Amino acid sequence: MNSPALPFPPPGSKTELEEGGVFTPRFDGDGLIGCIALDAHDGAVLMFAHMNAEALRLTLETGVAHYWSRSRQSLWRKGDTSGQVQRVVEIRTDCDQDVLLMTVVPGGDGGACHTGRRSCFYRKLVAEGGNVRLVNDGG
Amino acid sequence: MNSPALPFPPPGSKTELEEGGVFTPRFDGDGLIGCIALDAHDGAVLMFAHMNAEALRLTLETGVAHYWSRSRQSLWRKGDTSGQVQRVVEIRTDCDQDVLLMTVVPGGDGGACHTGRRSCFYRKLVAEGGNVRLVNDGG
Repeated sequence: MNSPALPFPPPGSKTELEEGGVFTPRFDGDGLIGCIALDAHDGAVLMFAHMNAEALRLTLETGVAHYWSRSRQSLWRKGDTSGQVQRVVEIRTDCDQDVLLMTVVPGGDGGACHTGRRSCFYRKLVAEGGNVRLVNDGG
Repeated sequence: MNSPALPFPPPGSKTELEEGGVFTPRFDGDGLIGCIALDAHDGAVLMFAHMNAEALRLTLETGVAHYWSRSRQSLWRKGDTSGQVQRVVEIRTDCDQDVLLMTVVPGGDGGACHTGRRSCFYRKLVAEGGNVRLVNDGG
């Protein structure tokens, strides 16, 4: 891909956001946009993370997922330390262009979660007597 | 389900968040947590929206998805006007408990997007000469 211009074009009207053919991502007050990552092999939801404009530009330019770490306050090329580099197959956006849905081929061991699980969503909620427990079933 | 106590227990240590058996959702500075909704029929990503503690409690209590509308600043029982009521099959959370992944059976016409599409993610990004276009392929 050629390098997308930065900054991205500003969001237009509701109709332009929903029906337009121009990508005008709506970053939040911290300059971030959420991104859902799916495994290209089976469509499983692997993780959810944030991108700033630079991470999104680098993702589009290189075809490899870059994120913004809110805890470390730094740009983050997924897989640099874990080997779990994510090759981007497709990126979609939603009706009001404030979330991304990205399909990736994960490298390394094929996982995405820093805890060692394949997916970050390895626990389900179970309501029990007014409390909610988490049960780890691997995802 | 019995009614979960409000407020939810406060988040603990990193280890408790990641490996603990207690659900301690991490709401953001606006008191919201993001929620990815999947269609139980085929696992397709239908939408992404936010919940506040009350919407989450009502979702757990009633088994029907409730969200917080940031644009309207109000609690929102999905489907009240559209008929697209979402019956909750399962809710998961991620490693640091700041996102939810919910599997739902959508009612009404089976869709989720207010634009009339089944999924909010009906457009994909296509890079073209340094610009990024959106192509509507239905999702």
